Amino acid sequence: MQTRARLDAQLAFLTEADRLKSVLRGTTLCDGSRRENSGEHSWHIALYALVLRDQAGPGVSIDRVIAMLLIHDLVEIDAGDAPIHGIHDTAAMAIAESAAAIRIFGLLPPDQATTFRALWEEFEAAQTPDAIFARSLDRVQPVVANLETGGGTWPAYNVTRAQLETRVGDKVRRGAPALWGALTARLDQWFGAQGHG
Amino acid sequence: MQTRARLDAQLAFLTEADRLKSVLRGTTLCDGSRRENSGEHSWHIALYALVLRDQAGPGVSIDRVIAMLLIHDLVEIDAGDAPIHGIHDTAAMAIAESAAAIRIFGLLPPDQATTFRALWEEFEAAQTPDAIFARSLDRVQPVVANLETGGGTWPAYNVTRAQLETRVGDKVRRGAPALWGALTARLDQWFGAQGHG
Repeated sequence: MQTRARLDAQLAFLTEADRLKSVLRGTTLCDGSRRENSGEHSWHIALYALVLRDQAGPGVSIDRVIAMLLIHDLVEIDAGDAPIHGIHDTAAMAIAESAAAIRIFGLLPPDQATTFRALWEEFEAAQTPDAIFARSLDRVQPVVANLETGGGTWPAYNVTRAQLETRVGDKVRRGAPALWGALTARLDQWFGAQGHG
Repeated sequence: MQTRARLDAQLAFLTEADRLKSVLRGTTLCDGSRRENSGEHSWHIALYALVLRDQAGPGVSIDRVIAMLLIHDLVEIDAGDAPIHGIHDTAAMAIAESAAAIRIFGLLPPDQATTFRALWEEFEAAQTPDAIFARSLDRVQPVVANLETGGGTWPAYNVTRAQLETRVGDKVRRGAPALWGALTARLDQWFGAQGHG
């Protein structure tokens, strides 16, 4: 691929990526003023990785984790965001996301299309140390936002403390146990105050 | 610093960082639907770095560039965004940004406060290969958004082709010459059509 054609393909991909800023998530900003979009969410958790790198287990490359987090939500441009406490057809979602990955990463020059898609699939598979740590951060950031906004989306979804532990806590503890531990007291307090701790 | 105190400081910083999503920039999204915020902008240019790493000059560490871009705008939480084609008191702005860096990075554990502030100062000084490349990406992304939206903010600021070359082109070419070259034809065409090429 000639340099100019390569650059044109890269710029086309980066322009398409802009649309992730218009995909709205279930969670709000920490001040509750509006719903968060998946572009700014991706920035925030990449910053989480940069700051919390000392929480990563052995064998984690923080630079790969950050790359993974920068691209992990791009499939939502086509497939949309699936809030964790909502009800989804997970099989249909997986098919839609795979098709989205082929289309969106396919805008890149072939070598990068392959690399980026492999990195996204690694994140989705949640098996490598890098992916496990990346997913811990992706799961924990909305918890912090909910704690900052008086429970955030938990009341609307009738989330219990036990459900949060299964759907979120188990995943965060897998990659960053002390990080989940640092939030436990605040979580116990909030759910306790709702009378369904 | 104990692990728990360290984690609490890191989470306090990450929660404060959330406010960057409410700082609005001069530029709009590529579909023109609304103004871009500095959080999603930071994500977008970190993605630019990941994709355009082969445009970086010798001696550039793309991982340091990405770290730099993830934190480069945090001072705007206190100091606000200064659109490139606007009129500013640059000395007053520099003082406000320095104070913001001390306060915001100062939320982190002391070792990270020092590292992050040094990285931000390196970006601002624009002297190292990493900072020069990072700044090229920071400058070029709004140009792409303006081209996508029929000139974007250029007409409002009465920007000429020559001004764009001085204020933006010179900086982009310093770190990523071929990248600026890839946009030249589209820029000539747009400004030519306005009759002030």
